[in-house]
Amino acid sequence: MSLADQVLDGDIRAAARMMRDIDDGRPHAVEELKRLYPHTGKAYIIGITGPPGAGKSTLVDQLTASFRKKGKRVGVVAIDPTSPFTGGAILGDRIRMNRHASDEGVFIRSLATRGALGGLSRSTSDVGLVMDAMGMEVIIIETVGVGQDEVDIVKTAHTTCVVMVPGLGDDIQAIKAGILEIGDVFVVNKSDRDGADRTARELTTMLEMRNAPEGSWHPRVIKTEAQRGPGMDELSGEILAHRDFLFTSGQLAGFVRERNQRHFLDILRDGLYRHAMEFMGRDGSLEKVVDAMGDNTLDPYSAAEAVIARMQGGAAGR
Amino acid sequence: MSLADQVLDGDIRAAARMMRDIDDGRPHAVEELKRLYPHTGKAYIIGITGPPGAGKSTLVDQLTASFRKKGKRVGVVAIDPTSPFTGGAILGDRIRMNRHASDEGVFIRSLATRGALGGLSRSTSDVGLVMDAMGMEVIIIETVGVGQDEVDIVKTAHTTCVVMVPGLGDDIQAIKAGILEIGDVFVVNKSDRDGADRTARELTTMLEMRNAPEGSWHPRVIKTEAQRGPGMDELSGEILAHRDFLFTSGQLAGFVRERNQRHFLDILRDGLYRHAMEFMGRDGSLEKVVDAMGDNTLDPYSAAEAVIARMQGGAAGR
Repeated sequence: MSLADQVLDGDIRAAARMMRDIDDGRPHAVEELKRLYPHTGKAYIIGITGPPGAGKSTLVDQLTASFRKKGKRVGVVAIDPTSPFTGGAILGDRIRMNRHASDEGVFIRSLATRGALGGLSRSTSDVGLVMDAMGMEVIIIETVGVGQDEVDIVKTAHTTCVVMVPGLGDDIQAIKAGILEIGDVFVVNKSDRDGADRTARELTTMLEMRNAPEGSWHPRVIKTEAQRGPGMDELSGEILAHRDFLFTSGQLAGFVRERNQRHFLDILRDGLYRHAMEFMGRDGSLEKVVDAMGDNTLDPYSAAEAVIARMQGGAAGR
Repeated sequence: MSLADQVLDGDIRAAARMMRDIDDGRPHAVEELKRLYPHTGKAYIIGITGPPGAGKSTLVDQLTASFRKKGKRVGVVAIDPTSPFTGGAILGDRIRMNRHASDEGVFIRSLATRGALGGLSRSTSDVGLVMDAMGMEVIIIETVGVGQDEVDIVKTAHTTCVVMVPGLGDDIQAIKAGILEIGDVFVVNKSDRDGADRTARELTTMLEMRNAPEGSWHPRVIKTEAQRGPGMDELSGEILAHRDFLFTSGQLAGFVRERNQRHFLDILRDGLYRHAMEFMGRDGSLEKVVDAMGDNTLDPYSAAEAVIARMQGGAAGR
């Protein structure tokens, strides 16, 4: 029985192994993903993003609990900051949400922000597919919302919640504006802190000032205290309201199409690059290019053009 | 006279135009960069990274002033958070460091975090090359230090300063660990705040706990109040000490080699992807792939493999 068949059969350990193989970039993982693909597309995906210190993990924990109460199976993909040297995730699966550890209806997976090739966005999609095929009905993706990578990841979610906290300094204004466009629901967490009302009011004003196209969703701002509970019911309610909007407005099809295109292009980009690296490895041309750049006898633009031209002739044996 | 020749001639407006062309991805910009390339490699590059709200802009402003006092020409590349929809930078050049606005020895350029293709790292390198060719002796790159993109950018700097502030919440521990490996100098800014000594002590302990290889640089932790001035002299001194170390230890050659390789691979990756997009645009295969994914009749992995195989046959007319 293939790994993919075991995953479809509900084998949790097979799923964990498959995700590890995806992470490690093992070639057979792609073959298994091909097999899973026809059985995916059923999960509802929620993205949670915001700056460090906004309390996203606690919020995800509470959301997980609330979906479990409704009988939904929940997958969580947590994108953790990585040490760029060791490649390991700083916060492991183990210290996350251990209260769900014995619950078979919850599957948690941490991904590290290591892949330099925009590979994180692809890993997230691939791991999401496995959870989808496992029968997880809700998948929550949690990521620190600063870089473009994170924005791309969040775009794969049906509903994106942007989490802010009162008083995180001046630069926060810039970030707020940057993620204003990607949020379907805005959360002011730690709302017992000073300035929570002001932050919520500012966000609401900024949202109202946008020129949203006719028939588009109007994001609301919800105040929560994820640590203690207040606001969580309102938040789940708002997520479900956005879900209903997507389905009844007919905007779901366009969203799915865009997400599929992005996923395909991620895979294509990775594949092309891997191909080029193998190609250059075979004839030692990477070394030669870098040597010549060091001598200032070759510029990297001309070098890249030459490699691409040679690759295109490659299959014909030129 | 080509744009490149005008830049080499010291024409500031030509340099600004060239950077805009790079940003806009205009094809002739690459030809101009090829011409500049032999005249680059002289600038000393300093990276400044850290979480939002750490006071990086003020620090960069102060560092710029201190290098100006020493008669150095200074280029600044500021990576600003972007609105993913409008594509514009949130903080523009204009509101940055206007006290240097009339100083011809300072050239400031903001880059927006928009390029979804890891293109930011490449834009930064390209803009840095133009500043280098203009005769800027010190180039400061400032970026929010959270995503992998930002880590990659900072790796292009000779000396990387990681800026922290006291008390930014729990997740900061994770970020600290993540960027511990990339810093050559650590800065605890806003050190008049409560907890500054503790943050500095924690950082020092974490740095001492690492198993640094024999003969490697030992990063120090410097406390600053960039807003008012204290600690800034110590910081510039530490940056110069690291620079001396790079030159005298013989580690500079390896660093430059690595940076050149990364720059070349960035350009190659972009080129391959652009090529693939043109290729698929010609025969409408992107549309067909996304349609078939929507029907679940084609998985994106097989689709990408097919496109790559066809591209390789492309030059032979297959």
